[in-house]
Amino acid sequence: MKILVINSGSSSIKYQLFVMPDQQVICSGVIERIGLEDSKVRYKTKEESLEEVLNIKDHKEGLEKVVTLLLDSKVGVIASTDEIKAVGHRVVHGGSSFTETIEVNQEVKNKIKDLFPLAPLHNPANLEGVNVAEGIFNKAKQVAVFDTSFHQTIPEKAYKYAIPNEFLDNENIRLYGFHGTSHKYVSEKAIDYLNKENSKIITIHLGNGCSMTAIKDGKSVDHSLGFGPATGLIMGTRSGDVDHSLIFHLINSLGYTSEEVNKMLHQESGMYGLTGYSDLRDIEDAADKGDKLCRLALEMNAYRVKKYIGSYLAAMNGLDAIVFTAGIGENSQKMRELICKDMDGLGISLDEKINDQRVSEFTDISAKEAKVKVLVIPTNEELEIARQSFELLGR
Amino acid sequence: MKILVINSGSSSIKYQLFVMPDQQVICSGVIERIGLEDSKVRYKTKEESLEEVLNIKDHKEGLEKVVTLLLDSKVGVIASTDEIKAVGHRVVHGGSSFTETIEVNQEVKNKIKDLFPLAPLHNPANLEGVNVAEGIFNKAKQVAVFDTSFHQTIPEKAYKYAIPNEFLDNENIRLYGFHGTSHKYVSEKAIDYLNKENSKIITIHLGNGCSMTAIKDGKSVDHSLGFGPATGLIMGTRSGDVDHSLIFHLINSLGYTSEEVNKMLHQESGMYGLTGYSDLRDIEDAADKGDKLCRLALEMNAYRVKKYIGSYLAAMNGLDAIVFTAGIGENSQKMRELICKDMDGLGISLDEKINDQRVSEFTDISAKEAKVKVLVIPTNEELEIARQSFELLGR
Repeated sequence: MKILVINSGSSSIKYQLFVMPDQQVICSGVIERIGLEDSKVRYKTKEESLEEVLNIKDHKEGLEKVVTLLLDSKVGVIASTDEIKAVGHRVVHGGSSFTETIEVNQEVKNKIKDLFPLAPLHNPANLEGVNVAEGIFNKAKQVAVFDTSFHQTIPEKAYKYAIPNEFLDNENIRLYGFHGTSHKYVSEKAIDYLNKENSKIITIHLGNGCSMTAIKDGKSVDHSLGFGPATGLIMGTRSGDVDHSLIFHLINSLGYTSEEVNKMLHQESGMYGLTGYSDLRDIEDAADKGDKLCRLALEMNAYRVKKYIGSYLAAMNGLDAIVFTAGIGENSQKMRELICKDMDGLGISLDEKINDQRVSEFTDISAKEAKVKVLVIPTNEELEIARQSFELLGR
Repeated sequence: MKILVINSGSSSIKYQLFVMPDQQVICSGVIERIGLEDSKVRYKTKEESLEEVLNIKDHKEGLEKVVTLLLDSKVGVIASTDEIKAVGHRVVHGGSSFTETIEVNQEVKNKIKDLFPLAPLHNPANLEGVNVAEGIFNKAKQVAVFDTSFHQTIPEKAYKYAIPNEFLDNENIRLYGFHGTSHKYVSEKAIDYLNKENSKIITIHLGNGCSMTAIKDGKSVDHSLGFGPATGLIMGTRSGDVDHSLIFHLINSLGYTSEEVNKMLHQESGMYGLTGYSDLRDIEDAADKGDKLCRLALEMNAYRVKKYIGSYLAAMNGLDAIVFTAGIGENSQKMRELICKDMDGLGISLDEKINDQRVSEFTDISAKEAKVKVLVIPTNEELEIARQSFELLGR
């Protein structure tokens, strides 16, 4: 059975076509710069790989272009759009409404729309993707997979902020959490590996966005991103945790506008703000050559992760495994090393030799004697969306 | 030798007169509502205790009133102001300039003044206290003891925020930390008790303001308050940690002003915002009677403390003792119980019987088998200021 996975952004559509339950990818690609003169179309199958520059004016035209390629007599992989039984859509914000993956109907679409104010950059684009796919794949089920739904098991004591109750009751201000599909995917693999009835796992998703989840018995119980994707770890350009009193100091004493401060914390901070580099590899190289700011930034980044590990260890009263995933988590030996250094007091200790090897698949990098398993598990959000869509079809 | 300790606030002066090195308090009191028609003067010696309502127009008049009482033929405790060899002043913000207690001279006063923008409510009042005391006790040494100086040993990776470097370099925006005198005082008692060369201690100061410090070998290495006294634990009316993206949501989407949000987070949040009560005893009583919001608030508060314990355990790669201090830390069995519950995975476990007793002095409340000592240590910031002033005189 063929399932198309779509991640529709404000000016892009990423797509992958799976054969399920084999979990085989038969086609993948992306359309970028939608709405501009020089939109870019990438399309890849096992045999073919092509790239075109076109004028694609909107998401509808974009998805139609993908369909044309999918059906193409030369590079295509399907004979009719009817072969696609489900389209799985990534939807960033499910608010408190969606605790699980769901088939899209008008009510679901209305709720995704109601959540626009909480995810103004993402939800409108996600919904546009759904609307366009409905028109083209009209025999397929449209499935919404929410980044937030995995975190709906977080208890109130962890998701509520210590601000007047009316802000939760009337304005839905609370911790929602993100990257849920990734945390779910890798934690399930870790639980399989541990082969243990009751498990306490911390998943560490380090990409351009970064987040950590405390997962007890397979359920998210705490998470480092909150109401928005801003807090917790130090990210590519986002600050993660800061003292909010600096915001008021900047606005009230130093004359910044709230827009300027918001932009600074989201787009000019994090590793970029500390080093001037936005790619971690550049920062690691410079640090190796003795750049003090780069070294400090790596230390700060690792220190923040360490503290979250400790805090989730306390939240769960124990720890069986930590999992590194996503671009940096999977590929930076250096970050893993810095994070796990001097953590034997928590039962965490690396096998440095294994860690130093290039890891591209599930790898246990913990030292033999260590109480806590340290795992590298490549994430695959698209596959997780395909799997959840497939499961939904079977219900 | 007599040392006067002064804590000068915006509309109050607290004072205690010590005989050192005996650490004996011969007189203490407070002047409140300075500048109002009905200022209140309290004055207490071993034999006498009096309260007057007067019109005290400023700090100078206030301190003069204290001196009149100190010299009074009936209730007085000194024959001449010259008996007082030092006046120890609490100064809230020492910025990065002051790593230790120092004798006040013009340069020190200038620096305290330079720090007004970082502590607009406290430093001006503190400096006013110094100026007034200089005029009255002109033979005494004026000593400044900073709330922040104990935290000057915090390493850069912990005090720096992940925002563009210019904000640290040009605007001195970093973690400073507060309640330093209290954390120092109780941690020294804990270290004496542990009788161990290398110690890893977490001090938990729970009063109306709340903070925690990670203390390695007697030195502060991390702290839960930051640039201002706003982050970390849930306090009486302050939120502690929140996702800063909610601030921008309130301002940009819901139309609040930054002043309103700042006020909300500092004066209407915390335990008060969650329950409507500002006194923890009322919240505990209501929770006992089944009030769900009060129960949840206590759970949230304890959960936050738990997470900081874990995070500092990770920061220090181990833990020998946690210390509860200040109003709530010393007096709330319930909070200590909630915090230490289900923490045996970290080596923390209470002797419930000892914890349930009314504790008024240094008490080890840990279970016998527990790896980590749990201590209740009453704080005494005034005594610590007197001690540090006395030490400075001896140099």
